Amino acid sequence: MQYRFADRLSRVPASFLDELFRVSADPSIISFAGGLPSSALIDTGGIAAATRDVMEGEASVALQYTTTDGYLPLREFIAERYRRRLGIPATAGEIQIVNGSQQCLDLFAKIFLDKGDHVGMERPGYLGAIEAFSLYEPTVDTVGLEDDGPDLGAFERLVSGTPVRFFYGIPNSQNPSGTTWSLEKRRAVAGILGDTDTVFYEDDAFGELFFDGRPRPPLKRWLPDQAVLSGSFSKIIAPGMRIGWMYAPREILARFNIVKQAADLHSNFLCQKIMHRYLATHDLDGHIRRIVAVYGRRCRLMCDLLDDLLPQCPHTRPEGGMFLMATLPPGISSRKVFDEGVKNKVAVLPGLPFYVDGGGDDTIRMNFSAPDEEQIREGVHRLSRVIASFR
Amino acid sequence: MQYRFADRLSRVPASFLDELFRVSADPSIISFAGGLPSSALIDTGGIAAATRDVMEGEASVALQYTTTDGYLPLREFIAERYRRRLGIPATAGEIQIVNGSQQCLDLFAKIFLDKGDHVGMERPGYLGAIEAFSLYEPTVDTVGLEDDGPDLGAFERLVSGTPVRFFYGIPNSQNPSGTTWSLEKRRAVAGILGDTDTVFYEDDAFGELFFDGRPRPPLKRWLPDQAVLSGSFSKIIAPGMRIGWMYAPREILARFNIVKQAADLHSNFLCQKIMHRYLATHDLDGHIRRIVAVYGRRCRLMCDLLDDLLPQCPHTRPEGGMFLMATLPPGISSRKVFDEGVKNKVAVLPGLPFYVDGGGDDTIRMNFSAPDEEQIREGVHRLSRVIASFR
Repeated sequence: MQYRFADRLSRVPASFLDELFRVSADPSIISFAGGLPSSALIDTGGIAAATRDVMEGEASVALQYTTTDGYLPLREFIAERYRRRLGIPATAGEIQIVNGSQQCLDLFAKIFLDKGDHVGMERPGYLGAIEAFSLYEPTVDTVGLEDDGPDLGAFERLVSGTPVRFFYGIPNSQNPSGTTWSLEKRRAVAGILGDTDTVFYEDDAFGELFFDGRPRPPLKRWLPDQAVLSGSFSKIIAPGMRIGWMYAPREILARFNIVKQAADLHSNFLCQKIMHRYLATHDLDGHIRRIVAVYGRRCRLMCDLLDDLLPQCPHTRPEGGMFLMATLPPGISSRKVFDEGVKNKVAVLPGLPFYVDGGGDDTIRMNFSAPDEEQIREGVHRLSRVIASFR
Repeated sequence: MQYRFADRLSRVPASFLDELFRVSADPSIISFAGGLPSSALIDTGGIAAATRDVMEGEASVALQYTTTDGYLPLREFIAERYRRRLGIPATAGEIQIVNGSQQCLDLFAKIFLDKGDHVGMERPGYLGAIEAFSLYEPTVDTVGLEDDGPDLGAFERLVSGTPVRFFYGIPNSQNPSGTTWSLEKRRAVAGILGDTDTVFYEDDAFGELFFDGRPRPPLKRWLPDQAVLSGSFSKIIAPGMRIGWMYAPREILARFNIVKQAADLHSNFLCQKIMHRYLATHDLDGHIRRIVAVYGRRCRLMCDLLDDLLPQCPHTRPEGGMFLMATLPPGISSRKVFDEGVKNKVAVLPGLPFYVDGGGDDTIRMNFSAPDEEQIREGVHRLSRVIASFR
C-alpha cells in the first residue's frame, strides 16, 4: 500500500540521534558524541528511597490519572527555586509540567507557529529544537553566535525587519557550542526585544551547571511578560523520568496547557510524585555541587588536552553545561571525522545538523559529562590521531 | 503584551476535562462524568514489588536516557500478546511506546494531516481525538454510529467520495457510546476500506475489558497494511504511568518514530521498566478477569437502574469498557442536567462535545468503572430526581 503522508514530514532534518545511540551502545567506543549526564552521578539510592516512600504512602493516587498542569507541590518547588536562585517572582500557576523540556519545544511551536511564520534561533542552534520546530513548517532565521552571545547587529536587523513570532535561545552553556551569553548581551537582547512583539523562548537546560556555582540572570528578569523559560530535571537528577517544565506568563500557559492536554493528557504522575518526594527529602544544592565539580574537572581536562594535542582546532571554553565545540582545520569534514573516529573507537558529533541553513561541516560537538577523565584522556588522544591522519 | 497565537488554537473545542477533574475532587458528588478506572482495582502491591525490583537491579539504566522507540522487552510482550490473543502476526519492530494512547492521536494526526485534509470518525466520537486532530486543522467528517457499528451506507459514501486520509474508530466498547461493532460490520468496513487508500486508525483502549472475556477480531486482521492499532495499559494496569503504544506497519511507524522523537525524545523509561517487570512477574489475564467481573456487575446494575428509574431515557447496553450513553427526554439539555446534577451531588457528562459537527445535547455519557455499586445505586436515584425536576 502507498501511504500519503503530511507535507510537514519533508521538512524534518535527518536525525543523527539513533546513530548516536548505536555508538553509545558499543562499550569499546569512547563517545564524546552523546548528550547524556553521567550515570554514575545519578543518586539512585536517594531516588530509590523516594520511590519506596511514594509506593508505600500514596501508590493508588500516583498510579491514577491526574490533571494536565502537573503535580502542584512539584510546581511550587520549581517556582520557589526560581524565586530564591534567580530572584524572579515565579508562581506555581505559571508552571506546567512536561515530559522533559524537549516537549516544550513541540508544544510551544504548536501554539505560536502557523505555516510560513518566522522563528529565530542561534547559529549553530540546538538540533532538537530544529527538529521540533520544523514540523510546524516555519521559516527559520538564524543569528550567528559569538563567544559572548548572539551577534547584536544581526539580531537587531532580524527582529526589527521581520515578524519573528519567537526567538529561541540557550543563554546558559548553549547546546551545541557551550557558549554562555555575557551580562551585557543579555541586557542588550532584552532591550532590543522590548521594542518588538517577538517572544523570547529561553531554554535553560544547563543553568544549574555553571562550574563556579553562580547563576546567571535570565532574560526573563527584564522581559517578564515577553519571555518564557523552560527547565528540566534531566541534567541535575535523572533524564529517564522525563520531567521538565515550562514557566510562562499565564496567558501563554493557558494555551500551552490546552495543547499539552491534546498531546498526552498529562505527564506520568508516578515520576512526578517520586521527583517531588526526592526533592523534599534530599539536598539538591549539595547534589548539584557534586555534579558541577566533576563536570568542571572534565571540561578543563578536555580543553587542556585539545590545546596540547590539537592546537590546530580552536574550541569554545565553557563556563558550565555538558558540551564544547571545536573547529576542524580547513578541508576536513566533520562527517568524515565521525566515520573515521568510529573506526578508531572515538566518536564526536558532526556540527552539520546544528546549522539549519547550511554550513558547519568544519565543526564538531564534544560532550564531557558522560566520559570519565581516563576516557577523556584516551579519547582526545585517539581523536588527535584521527585528525592527523587527514593531513 | 499582546500575543499572536497560531490559527490552529481557534479550532480546539472547549474542553470539559478540567471541569470534570474539579467535580471528581469533591467527594460529596457521585461522579459518572469521569473516565477513571477503579483505583481500588489497581494492583498497587504488585506494582510496588515490580518497582522495588527495578530500583534494586537496574536503577542507573532506568533513570538514564534511552531510545525513542521504547523498551524492547516491553514491545516484545505487547507483540506476543497480540499474536496470542488476537491471532495477528505482530512483531516488536511494529510497536512504538508512547505516553498513553492519547499521544498516538496527536502523533498520528501529525504524520497524516495537512491543513484542510479530511479525517473521518464516528458520530458521536471520542472527545480526546477531536481535540488532538483539530490542532492540525483538518476537515472532520463523521459517520453515524448505530447499535452495531457505523452506518455502512454513510461510511461507503464518505470514503468513496472524499479523500479521507484516515478514519478513526473505536470498534470495542466505544467512548462515549459504549457501542461494540458487530463482526459483520467489521468485515464490511474492512471490505469497503480495502478499495480505497484511507488508513484505518483502530483505537483499542477497551478491547481487554469485554465482560464475557472474549476478544473481538480487530479490523487490522483484514487490513494488515492499511490499519494501525493503538493500545494502552491505562485501563488494565495503571493510567498514572502513561504507557500506551502504537502498532503500525513499519513504513508508517518510521514516520511516527520521527515525530515522537521531536515531541519528547522518548517516554519515561523508569515506568517502562516497572511496567515490563510487573507484566513479567504477574498474571495479567487473572488481573483482567478480576477487573472485568467488577465492571460487568457495575454496568448491569447501572443499566437495570436506568431501566427502572428512567424508562424515558433509552441507553446503550455495553458488552465491555467503562461507559454507556443515555438519551434524555425531548427538550432537556444535557448541559442543564450537568449543572442541576452537580447541585444535587451527581455528575454526568454532557454528550455535546462528542458531536464535532453539532447536536448531541440530548445525550449524556455515564461512567460505571469508577463508582462502586452503592454509589451507582444512589447516583442513579439522584439523577432520576434531577431529570424528573425538569418535567
